[in-house]
Amino acid sequence: MDSKIKESLINIVGPDNFTDALIDLVSFSYDSSGLNRRPAAAVWIHNTNQVAEVLKLANIHKFPVTPRGAGTSLSGSAVPQEGGLVLDMCPMNEILQISIEDRLVVVQPGVVFDHLNQVLAPYGFFFPPNPASGKVSTIGGNVATNAGGVKGAKYGTTRDYVLDLEVVLPNGSVLHTGSHTMKCVSGYDLTRLFVGSEGTLGVVTEVTLKINPIPRATTTCTATFYDLPQAGKAVSEIMHSGIIPSVLELMDSPTLQAVNQATDLDLPEVAAMLLVETDGYTQQEADYQMDKVVEALKNNDAAEIVQTSRVDEAENLWAARKAAYGVLTRLNYNVLAEDIVVPISKVAEMLAGILDISKRYSILIATVAHAGDGNIHPVIVYDGTDSGEADRVKQVEADLFKLAIELGGTLTGEHGVGIHKSRYMNMEHDSVFLEVMNGLKNLFDPNAILNPGKLGLKV
Amino acid sequence: MDSKIKESLINIVGPDNFTDALIDLVSFSYDSSGLNRRPAAAVWIHNTNQVAEVLKLANIHKFPVTPRGAGTSLSGSAVPQEGGLVLDMCPMNEILQISIEDRLVVVQPGVVFDHLNQVLAPYGFFFPPNPASGKVSTIGGNVATNAGGVKGAKYGTTRDYVLDLEVVLPNGSVLHTGSHTMKCVSGYDLTRLFVGSEGTLGVVTEVTLKINPIPRATTTCTATFYDLPQAGKAVSEIMHSGIIPSVLELMDSPTLQAVNQATDLDLPEVAAMLLVETDGYTQQEADYQMDKVVEALKNNDAAEIVQTSRVDEAENLWAARKAAYGVLTRLNYNVLAEDIVVPISKVAEMLAGILDISKRYSILIATVAHAGDGNIHPVIVYDGTDSGEADRVKQVEADLFKLAIELGGTLTGEHGVGIHKSRYMNMEHDSVFLEVMNGLKNLFDPNAILNPGKLGLKV
Repeated sequence: MDSKIKESLINIVGPDNFTDALIDLVSFSYDSSGLNRRPAAAVWIHNTNQVAEVLKLANIHKFPVTPRGAGTSLSGSAVPQEGGLVLDMCPMNEILQISIEDRLVVVQPGVVFDHLNQVLAPYGFFFPPNPASGKVSTIGGNVATNAGGVKGAKYGTTRDYVLDLEVVLPNGSVLHTGSHTMKCVSGYDLTRLFVGSEGTLGVVTEVTLKINPIPRATTTCTATFYDLPQAGKAVSEIMHSGIIPSVLELMDSPTLQAVNQATDLDLPEVAAMLLVETDGYTQQEADYQMDKVVEALKNNDAAEIVQTSRVDEAENLWAARKAAYGVLTRLNYNVLAEDIVVPISKVAEMLAGILDISKRYSILIATVAHAGDGNIHPVIVYDGTDSGEADRVKQVEADLFKLAIELGGTLTGEHGVGIHKSRYMNMEHDSVFLEVMNGLKNLFDPNAILNPGKLGLKV
Repeated sequence: MDSKIKESLINIVGPDNFTDALIDLVSFSYDSSGLNRRPAAAVWIHNTNQVAEVLKLANIHKFPVTPRGAGTSLSGSAVPQEGGLVLDMCPMNEILQISIEDRLVVVQPGVVFDHLNQVLAPYGFFFPPNPASGKVSTIGGNVATNAGGVKGAKYGTTRDYVLDLEVVLPNGSVLHTGSHTMKCVSGYDLTRLFVGSEGTLGVVTEVTLKINPIPRATTTCTATFYDLPQAGKAVSEIMHSGIIPSVLELMDSPTLQAVNQATDLDLPEVAAMLLVETDGYTQQEADYQMDKVVEALKNNDAAEIVQTSRVDEAENLWAARKAAYGVLTRLNYNVLAEDIVVPISKVAEMLAGILDISKRYSILIATVAHAGDGNIHPVIVYDGTDSGEADRVKQVEADLFKLAIELGGTLTGEHGVGIHKSRYMNMEHDSVFLEVMNGLKNLFDPNAILNPGKLGLKV
């Protein structure tokens, strides 16, 4: 890095908050996607003004800047540009305001998702999106990727809870996008333009979130299926049975096997297992919904249905689902967690297609899914050191995307586009959409300093 | 209108769908805001291609175009530019797809809100936003203004349900913004950029909406208060009691009096009445929540509480609220329905401020509110033929906005900015926000042909 730029950065953040040490650069070179590019330097950010000064500097010297939270992106959205600068936002980790009476919280971007919910729990409130990475991922990262999770079918995603953002624009000016109120239509919805924009339009430095009262009663059940697509049909029937489950997860046979190999949960190694949770303020409400769920499960040839309203028993049922991604990473050298979404009625067809693709290319695909909103994670498990296998994985991936889009679906429901899916954006979107995206990027960031190479943008 | 342009328009929409007859131009000159500007012509739109062709023509000849649904805007967002062209979107009124199994519907913009819900009811599903204008207002208008209503506290607003839009951009190209799936993060959230943009960025020609199962049980109650701000305190306590009511409406004393004058409902003419509804799939769930509500009401000195789970009794309680706006329009020559939102904990303070402002200027203000999300409608009732009174109303309005913003609130929660609040936008927003808005407008519509003079934009 140019010594003059280095000196300026040190002036902005202080010598203790700048690094170009190799060990740090290696740490900041990758995220959970497995992709990596080594930056020239990184700074630890402590306040909004530092972001503004860094971005002004970047605009003068035209160097790329990638904001970063906990680096749990599965699509490479937090991977920096080779030779660029990383803004580590984690030191901005204060909860600034808890206003239960206003049904909102104001937090800095470095606050960890689970920490926020731990702090809110004694008030009886929660921030519902529930990313699998919640133990470590930050609210800033959740906003940047519009994080979703296991409770999406009922509670939506991050986007549905963001009321206001403070954002530093690439030119260094500070934008307040919304209002600390439940409703606001005074002007364009700039808030949601930044949610999911993967740090390509501005750097979020403060987040105001709507929060919900915690539903006090839940009922949990698991159901096994001897046929994977049949489980998809059950999902579809549940989702139009007139209730909305708070959780509707699917695990397929390879996933169940992998869980058994790594834990003592002793799961039935059937074609698929569904994990369903219903909730409410009263047990009657949770149970009424579960009755509808069980009816739909029985109508669709569920083999074994286990139901409980006991927290400890529910925890056992959850253990398998929570272990799934972790145990899959142990099966082989590489895993690639895909993140397609199809219309709910097409879940069965997509699951059948995944089996098909897996067989055709002799590549192991283990599928977990937030099935209630059609969000399917085919996890491709392979040996990346075998070049033939690595090549087949590329075809597997392209075929998965192609099928999802043929079924009226989308490339990504919650992991984002990042670097990983950039080249597939034109499979889903036409030139009008992509031109508008590029126009917006150019409007906000004419020198393309912010997180370049992401989201299928030209810069 | 230039005869060449007229001829081109007739070529596009056909002679039966073009008008420059005075009677039509007068009809199209105003909306429910009372503002009016006479267009030079109007066309009835039947398909997407017609919109594209009209916008291309407008870009060549630089004439202003205002899309219009049912014209129920209370802020003038549907009032055309003097001498401009109105696009009446009402003929595009087909429900294109009802996919209960995918939890979505696809509709044309001219579909009426209530009609959609009547069609969905037999399936046990509904589109929750519930604008007071729902009997006539169109989905296109709901999208253009991000319409909300009495169920906002629990069910949110239009924005929370739009999955995908087909939009004709000012240059005539057709944009698809989202996906027919429950989740999608592949690219910037263009969908919500158009929701609430009041027809200034593009013309919506198709809308894909998420729908919800209808909760089958409701409990309704009314509570009277001898002190208006005290009712506001009750609202705040209800909203952090750990449940979310599906309805939490407030009517003040002038409103109750006006209802009594025009109906035989014989309401108690107290300082305020709250109307609360809780819902669920089971009666226990609705009742549990109502117990929490009643506890909060009692803690805050509610005078009389009437509770029912019977539909007919609930309808009586609703009758007053539904009549409110209509009866207020009969009290004097003019009404001005304001639409401020404050943080929930500030509702009491805002209500006290409204009483204060009303006294200070000797202007009648009748207040109804979607109190559960802090959305307050002070309805200013006055004699516009009295210039002194009309002048005082301007001051009343400015003082209301000033107070709302001092309390951390916003100019508009659901009526939009339109013409009416354009000049107040800089009271709420700083220059960075307004510059971004103008930048976006210029990116999409460089010739400023689409609905100029709205939203506080420069053009």
